[in-house]
Amino acid sequence: MHQPKGISRSLSAIGIMAALVGGACSSKSEVTKGGVGTSASLTDLMKARNLSEADVNAALKTYTPTGRMDEYLTFASGGHGGQVIVIGVPSMRILKYIAVFTPEPWQGYGFDDQTKAVLAGGKRFGKDLTWADTHHPALSEQGGDYDGKFLFIGDKANARIAVIDLSDFETKQIVTSELIGGDHGAAFVTPNTDYIVETTQYPVPFGSVYADPAKEFKDKFRGAAIFWRFDRTKGRIDPEASFAVEFPPYTQDLADAGKLTSDGYAFFNSINTELTWGGNQEGNPPMESGYSKNDMDYLHVVNWRKAEELVKAGKAETINGMKVIRLATAAAEGVLTFVPESKSPHGVDVTPDGEDIVVSGKLDTHGTVFSFAKIKAQIDAKKFETKDPYGVPVLSFKDSIRGQVELGLGPLHTQFDDKGNAYTSLFLETVVAKWSVKDLKVIDKMPTHYNIGHLVAAEGDTIHPDGKYLIAMNKWALDRFNKVGPLLPQNFQLADITQTKMQLLYDMPIPLGEPHYAQMIKVDKLKPIDVYTPGEDPMTGKRSVNAVEPNKERVERRPDGVHVYMTAIRSHFTPDIVRVKQGDTVHWHIDNLEQAYDATHGFAINSYNINISIEPGEHSDITFVADKAGVFPLYCTEFCSALHLEMAGYFLVEPKI
Amino acid sequence: MHQPKGISRSLSAIGIMAALVGGACSSKSEVTKGGVGTSASLTDLMKARNLSEADVNAALKTYTPTGRMDEYLTFASGGHGGQVIVIGVPSMRILKYIAVFTPEPWQGYGFDDQTKAVLAGGKRFGKDLTWADTHHPALSEQGGDYDGKFLFIGDKANARIAVIDLSDFETKQIVTSELIGGDHGAAFVTPNTDYIVETTQYPVPFGSVYADPAKEFKDKFRGAAIFWRFDRTKGRIDPEASFAVEFPPYTQDLADAGKLTSDGYAFFNSINTELTWGGNQEGNPPMESGYSKNDMDYLHVVNWRKAEELVKAGKAETINGMKVIRLATAAAEGVLTFVPESKSPHGVDVTPDGEDIVVSGKLDTHGTVFSFAKIKAQIDAKKFETKDPYGVPVLSFKDSIRGQVELGLGPLHTQFDDKGNAYTSLFLETVVAKWSVKDLKVIDKMPTHYNIGHLVAAEGDTIHPDGKYLIAMNKWALDRFNKVGPLLPQNFQLADITQTKMQLLYDMPIPLGEPHYAQMIKVDKLKPIDVYTPGEDPMTGKRSVNAVEPNKERVERRPDGVHVYMTAIRSHFTPDIVRVKQGDTVHWHIDNLEQAYDATHGFAINSYNINISIEPGEHSDITFVADKAGVFPLYCTEFCSALHLEMAGYFLVEPKI
Repeated sequence: MHQPKGISRSLSAIGIMAALVGGACSSKSEVTKGGVGTSASLTDLMKARNLSEADVNAALKTYTPTGRMDEYLTFASGGHGGQVIVIGVPSMRILKYIAVFTPEPWQGYGFDDQTKAVLAGGKRFGKDLTWADTHHPALSEQGGDYDGKFLFIGDKANARIAVIDLSDFETKQIVTSELIGGDHGAAFVTPNTDYIVETTQYPVPFGSVYADPAKEFKDKFRGAAIFWRFDRTKGRIDPEASFAVEFPPYTQDLADAGKLTSDGYAFFNSINTELTWGGNQEGNPPMESGYSKNDMDYLHVVNWRKAEELVKAGKAETINGMKVIRLATAAAEGVLTFVPESKSPHGVDVTPDGEDIVVSGKLDTHGTVFSFAKIKAQIDAKKFETKDPYGVPVLSFKDSIRGQVELGLGPLHTQFDDKGNAYTSLFLETVVAKWSVKDLKVIDKMPTHYNIGHLVAAEGDTIHPDGKYLIAMNKWALDRFNKVGPLLPQNFQLADITQTKMQLLYDMPIPLGEPHYAQMIKVDKLKPIDVYTPGEDPMTGKRSVNAVEPNKERVERRPDGVHVYMTAIRSHFTPDIVRVKQGDTVHWHIDNLEQAYDATHGFAINSYNINISIEPGEHSDITFVADKAGVFPLYCTEFCSALHLEMAGYFLVEPKI
Repeated sequence: MHQPKGISRSLSAIGIMAALVGGACSSKSEVTKGGVGTSASLTDLMKARNLSEADVNAALKTYTPTGRMDEYLTFASGGHGGQVIVIGVPSMRILKYIAVFTPEPWQGYGFDDQTKAVLAGGKRFGKDLTWADTHHPALSEQGGDYDGKFLFIGDKANARIAVIDLSDFETKQIVTSELIGGDHGAAFVTPNTDYIVETTQYPVPFGSVYADPAKEFKDKFRGAAIFWRFDRTKGRIDPEASFAVEFPPYTQDLADAGKLTSDGYAFFNSINTELTWGGNQEGNPPMESGYSKNDMDYLHVVNWRKAEELVKAGKAETINGMKVIRLATAAAEGVLTFVPESKSPHGVDVTPDGEDIVVSGKLDTHGTVFSFAKIKAQIDAKKFETKDPYGVPVLSFKDSIRGQVELGLGPLHTQFDDKGNAYTSLFLETVVAKWSVKDLKVIDKMPTHYNIGHLVAAEGDTIHPDGKYLIAMNKWALDRFNKVGPLLPQNFQLADITQTKMQLLYDMPIPLGEPHYAQMIKVDKLKPIDVYTPGEDPMTGKRSVNAVEPNKERVERRPDGVHVYMTAIRSHFTPDIVRVKQGDTVHWHIDNLEQAYDATHGFAINSYNINISIEPGEHSDITFVADKAGVFPLYCTEFCSALHLEMAGYFLVEPKI
């Protein structure tokens, strides 16, 4: 095929630079003319596109030529889009949207029996939920480092957790507990992924049973942290082996698990020790002022290993199918302890060495650095300053902190690098503050555009952060991108954090969904498969009992309906004509016989709301009733070959007489 | 706020170049040290990231610094994802996914009454369809040029057309005709957007009524072109003023409208004059070989102004609610004429001057350039070579062409630039061929990675193409990006087409959906609004009768249920407590009182599958039954302020006694 006549690769770097740039030594040159099809010199290009030298530097740090791979993948939540967004770093190209809680037809997600069953796991009170507010993705860990095997993500709106297998980047499980009504601190994992932590945001009475907050808020409404047990061998959460710790109705917020010295503990912020419940047309102030009356809220310290022991010892009560350590037990047995924290905090982030816990109080200009050793010493000595109204022991604030760092306006969330620095997002000041964890001093601030929420650094919440890159996850985009109507994208800003001063590299719009938090992993930790084993059901990882072999395609009428055994291979389905009778239940079993990487087929039936994606080797099942008689084209929806348009046939439904 | 200490902007370009690059004049320098936080010289950077001079050139032609806008927007279909993708050019950043046929919760699309009604317009045979196979987007035109007002897109799977208003980038209407079973040549507009053209792909009997293709394919199955009338004032398709032209069941493919001299005509390819219908388990060969037996298929030439006259004259028959000019009438009255074309073509593309029609036969190595003048002369003279089996007059191939251009393997689709050149995608050869329309000679070929389907050039199908940029829309990505499991992104490749040789600039993965075709428009033609007028219902463009004013928030019990009149403004809903009784029908009316650009709020209710996006000024309605008693948090799902988490309340459903 066509080979561009390039300048010989044997030219020295110096020679190329001289040729490319020219400007510095001769006022004008068009060196690459006749070379690779470019004729503009670098100076001309910079002038034409109004690029500064900083822009050129940033361009070359992010531009990723054809066929070249990225160094990191970032998994960002998709907010109320209900998905996960996979982004290459430093190119900031979106490689995939993974459907999680929201049906998505390109992936066939929610359209075949397999993925319908995954979504059905997320029903609440018998209701289908076709969206979610995905907030915090968490990569699975071994020994406090990402292992690249699984990704978990929480649905704030409906208190659900999803499990994504990073061998095929597909959602395998959704769980929910009707104990709680929503979450926010979810998902966070313990250092060996024994548990996935999910914490309530807005409290409800357990099981969402009716109660009037005007009369019963304090007594009946409750928070909780659910510790979902993860079975690594099966790659699934085991609800039977999971448990919860009851909390007061304080509107818990973000969470983090202890690591190394603090392993076995988990930490949760709270933002409503005032017990405000709303009622701005019932004589109460607006919620946001009610929430902000107290100067201090409570950092919740949970000894989850102790909780695990109590559950094993039968000291949990089963409520809505979940084993719950009741508040009185948790308080009495040292499972739950409070430490005062600056009012209305958002992020709680454990340092890489596990020794400190950084709390960002969004209405305080400080970051507070709590010392786990100091907290544990007080707990061990039962040295409590007071108790909260629910009987939970409260430690001394001043005896629990290592110090505070003056950060600026609206600190939200903190990540770490490999050089002992922390990076905290400041929403109101709309900057990232870089500060020394040891010295508690700010080193640099980088403006963001605009209103940064969370941020993520390369492996920045593990015991071995990589440094290198940081992404500011900004909530408002305003004048950053071309106008696309009243609903704007968010703006991710990539920064180089290898030097003392942070350098802004790239502005990236998020075209779908509102990311809240992300995880950034080195790509060499990920080992996704290229194709499925022939006949494989992706949800079991095994050959389906209904897998269809070539030359064994057929249509069988059985007591439970008509079974279609179909194969797909470039460029036809076999059979390509399927005849049923109106009213038949149809069980469609289909295999993509391809084993070539990227040889995906789609399968759609006109007017029947059926479309699935069948990756190479994949087996899929679709069950439906042929309720409408007539002639319905079926075809491959993935442009698979030059004869793709011919990969079609008919679904013929003979009318009832 | 923070101001980085940059190198003074007054440095001359030459000076900056010398400082930045160094390499050409001195062997090593780290010039920007202490500058904007960068310390690597250009040579070091190129070495560190293994960039060639061509890479640097491409990087600087695409990199778009913070806050800088793109020159063009590309609207690409999202394939079986059912959306439209909005991409900035040259940065190749995705600015938005517009939900069209598939419900999407981030946009609240399919979750409020307004957008549910839009989706309901796309029901077929009473069935909800929650996906689509979006194929060909078409921008509205005035006088053959894009006017930036509307975008139309077809659903191949279910024969539907959607109307997107580019004032707010939202889908306003979906129409379908049960006359046909699916489309492919859709949407294409006539030069003043009088009509949006939709052509069948796989033929079915009109109305999808049952017939056995083994016995009745030739007699009962039919194709058609629907001319959907567009009412520019209302911004909606008027189905009553639309009509169809019946075609033989030849599997019509792509379409294009004539322009300038050929205005009033439309052109359609066909790929199955063999009348193959499948049946590979019923004694027939696979469809793909059946389709390829004949050397020539038929280019369908439709005189749509004549058709319009016939409809007005009452010569159409109403079938499935659509006025249809029957085949015999179309043939007899000069509405439909055939011209032989090389077998199994894909693209049919009218040149900017409207004089020629380029047909790419994917199993032929040529592009065939038909002359409209020659075709029209024969039609006017009723000089027909023969008739097809349905009585449609067939012109002489050799008397209809201006010539052929030897392109290469698998030509699919053609676009044009401002210098008289055409660009044709070659799927099998996996290149773009640039050729002179006048000379019928190939000038350049650019490899693509891999398997290019369609391509799009800047305003490349209008009467005034811009040249400048071209995007190759490649079907396979293989080794282009980091692995993300067996389902891969597609690969869009941006090329600079200002020089004789095309220059590859950028590889862009498509993370969701499989784009088929796109339209690229200069951004200055687009004038989207920033915010809605207070109380505006986006679907009517008018103030809603249920619009809620500040201080008039309330809950009213009426015979048809409970009406909630709620407002949203940073950082609370009013009322924030809503009390209803189990079984109540709830009519929720909500207004975002903000008028600040980007001050979007979300509104969600836990466990009730409710989430909408309310842009500034927007009014929205949600209707549902409060069937589950209990306590359900409601909250803002869009991170709107530092007190966003406090923007919450409760939906209280008192149980039936």
